[in-house]
Parts: sequence; C-alpha cells; structure tokens
Amino acid sequence: MQTLGADLVHVSPGQVEIALTPRPEIAQQHGFVHAGAVSAIADSAAGYAALSVMPAGRGILTTEFKINLLAPAAGTRIVARGKVVKAGRTLTLAQTEVLAENDGKERLVALLTATLMTIEGRDGIVD
Amino acid sequence: MQTLGADLVHVSPGQVEIALTPRPEIAQQHGFVHAGAVSAIADSAAGYAALSVMPAGRGILTTEFKINLLAPAAGTRIVARGKVVKAGRTLTLAQTEVLAENDGKERLVALLTATLMTIEGRDGIVD
Amino acid sequence: MQTLGADLVHVSPGQVEIALTPRPEIAQQHGFVHAGAVSAIADSAAGYAALSVMPAGRGILTTEFKINLLAPAAGTRIVARGKVVKAGRTLTLAQTEVLAENDGKERLVALLTATLMTIEGRDGIVD
Amino acid sequence: MQTLGADLVHVSPGQVEIALTPRPEIAQQHGFVHAGAVSAIADSAAGYAALSVMPAGRGILTTEFKINLLAPAAGTRIVARGKVVKAGRTLTLAQTEVLAENDGKERLVALLTATLMTIEGRDGIVD
Repeated sequence: MQTLGADLVHVSPGQVEIALTPRPEIAQQHGFVHAGAVSAIADSAAGYAALSVMPAGRGILTTEFKINLLAPAAGTRIVARGKVVKAGRTLTLAQTEVLAENDGKERLVALLTATLMTIEGRDGIVD
Repeated sequence: MQTLGADLVHVSPGQVEIALTPRPEIAQQHGFVHAGAVSAIADSAAGYAALSVMPAGRGILTTEFKINLLAPAAGTRIVARGKVVKAGRTLTLAQTEVLAENDGKERLVALLTATLMTIEGRDGIVD
Repeated sequence: MQTLGADLVHVSPGQVEIALTPRPEIAQQHGFVHAGAVSAIADSAAGYAALSVMPAGRGILTTEFKINLLAPAAGTRIVARGKVVKAGRTLTLAQTEVLAENDGKERLVALLTATLMTIEGRDGIVD
Repeated sequence: MQTLGADLVHVSPGQVEIALTPRPEIAQQHGFVHAGAVSAIADSAAGYAALSVMPAGRGILTTEFKINLLAPAAGTRIVARGKVVKAGRTLTLAQTEVLAENDGKERLVALLTATLMTIEGRDGIVD
C-alpha cells in the first residue's frame, strides 16, 4: 500500500475505502493507473472489509479474486470501495467497486469479487 | 514492472516469463511477496503472452482476470509463466502459473486466467 | 431454461428476473438445487439483462462468468436477479444475485459476474 | 448429470472425464450445447476430480468457479476433462478443459477453474 501511495480513508464494519492519487510510478505510458495497481487496491479493500468484521485475533487470506476492468483508471483520485457480501466462519465473500474521480464526478472503472479465508492468529492478515 | 523490480526474462510466441526477486517494498509483514505484486506480474505475463502473438500495430487490454492464490509467495525468486490458451480476433485467453523457487525447487503459488481484448494502435499496450 | 423448469418473471431495461421452483430432476441428493442449475439461471439472467439494453438486431454471447456459491440453494423458490453493471459497444458486464425464498424471506445463495460480447445478428442470442 | 444426459467416462486419482452427446433439450436454438450445460459438466468434472483425491468419508462443495467460453460447443461429443491443480486440507483447486469432438478432432471450447471446499461427511458430495 505504501509502495503504491494508497491510503485507507474509511473503515466501518464491513465497509472500507482505499484511495490513490495517480503518480507516474504506478501509471502505464498513457497516464492511466496500471491495472496491477488497480487490482492491488481493490483486493486490499476487499480484504480489509472482511477483516473489519472478524473477531479479534483472527486474520484473513485472499484465496481468489476476479476483477473486471471496465474503463481506464484515469482521474484525479482512484477510490476502491470494498464491502462484505457474506461473512462465513471459514470463507467470506467481499466485493469492491473501483471508481475514478474527475471534476467531482465518479465513474466505475473496475469491479472485483474476492474470497477471503479466516485464519487463526494474525499471520496472514492483509496489509 | 519497474516499481515492482520485475524483469521480463523470456519471450517466445505465445509464452512469456516474468521474474521477481522478493524485496521488502513488495512484501507483507511476514516476508511473503504481497498478493497485489503476485497478481501484477501474473497479469503482465498473460498480457505480454497475448501481445507476442498479435500482428504488428495492435495492442491489448486486460478486460478481466481471475487469480487463485494457493500458497504464500515465499522464495528466492518468484516466476510468472504466461501462455496463450486461445488467440481470437477480438478476445484472447491467456493463463499464467506463478511459481516460487526455493533451493532449486519450484512450487505453484498462484494460477491466473485473463481475457485480453485486441485494440487497434498500441495505446492500450501492456507495460 | 425449459429443461430446468425456469421462468422469466421480470424484464425491464437492464434488469431481468428468472425464477425456478425446485424439482427432483435438478436437485442433488439432499434436495438442494444443483450448482449447475443455479449457475445456468444466473448466467441466463445476466445474459437477458445485457440483451435488454442492446439495440434491435444485436445478439450477445457469454464470454466468461464467475460464480461464488455462498449457501445451499434450498427453498420454495430460487430467484436469479440479473442487472447490467456497464454496457459497452463490444463488451457488457452484468451481475446476478441468486436468492432462495423460504417462509417469505430471501437469502443470498450465489453471486455471479459475467462478460457478454455483442454480436451482429441474433445468432448467439441467449435462450 | 442424468437430466443433462452426461456420463462419467473416466476416473483416476485427480483426473476425471465427463462426456455429453448433444441433444435438443440441452441445446440453444442453433444446435450448440447451451453454456449452462457446458458449465455444469465442467464444474462436475472439477468436483469429481477433487473428490477422487479426498480421504474416505469426506465430501466437497464448490465454493466458486470461473469459466471462459471460447467457442460454440458444437460437435458429436462434448468432453469435460477435470484435474486437480492443488489439493489442500480445506480448499482444493481444480481445472477443467471442455473439448468438442468433430471428425476425430478435438477443439477447446471452454476452460474452468474451481475452488472446492472439503467437508466432513458426504452431505455436500457432488452428484
């Protein structure tokens, strides 16, 4: 997250928001944020959302995610909004919408669904 | 790729290999390479594999990918091997295996499938 | 759809609902609707939702879908609610929630995202 | 499987083959096998492959799958070849290739990856 320059801007039970200000290091040659960085913040938002509803002392691991990339991630700010779809004892499903902000307007640029596995201890905790 | 410290170590028509030497900047707190970095090199390997079979003057865009994360990406080197499964006029399917090398042995740590869309011009070319 | 005993119960632009009354032929041995039947109605709902926003004379083909199965599809009625997330010229993303109804209550049992490709002519139209 | 007219034609540890002879009931209007039926046999092949490596007394449940549909499933026989990619204590990853046979030649029509969860008892066993 630090490498990407991303910040956790909102956390409430089951909902998390991560924001990124586009910089050259994470852009491809046309100024869009690279799909890899978009995926990384989307996956992190899903992971933190899952973690936010876990009992203390539990961690989570992403076991799989799928992301649909809908439009170039171009804007003054890129925001990943993760929320828990269903929290289970072993597996939790979370979904993240990634939006690009431009002139006060938001545009959906990516949609991710992720399966997170609960683990004992904090060893696999997302960071 | 530069931000991640990843290198394109092999390219042949339909097959591409990207390697990464784990560094603290892309690791989570236990020394494993972060899932975001694993996904980024896996997606890039799929994209370059698709690009390697495109006619000159065409680019590609990732429209979606799914990754299954099977084991922690811990090792002396992380290698993403992308190959084209089926090249189409509009859409190409590629698959990447991500392996962690340790003591001369390889272990599968992730499996990705990606759909790439062919575009006119090189504007959307993976980088 | 006929083989599954499923009905199209609602269509509006970008939104479609398909319902299924569980029968022995599509159940696994414990009376739950089989994952294959759940996937089939979920995919069909996504496809019809995409088709509902296409110009006349266009058809659609599913190029990929992912489904997360969250709970057994047990109930008096299984409903798949498909909606368009983003309609594009070539590709459209749709999402379907599958709910199981029991005693007037709904429970989310599956979540699907699908990419649909627009095609000229109605040859690939979902049915 | 019975409803679809599919047969389990091969089982060995970690590998399973399910075959389907196209019939009008499972075809869409142009004679191709419906995507729903293709997905169902692909998911079943992945599930049986996972089950074939489980200790006695364990069952499995599909928690998610993704399928890429590459070409129309048209042919004299449709074969789904499932294999275990990685068997874990809680989660197993399997992959299925679906091939259409025509004039003695095979063509890849779909590729599926599925996560299966091990369960105690045979209650969730695939059928």
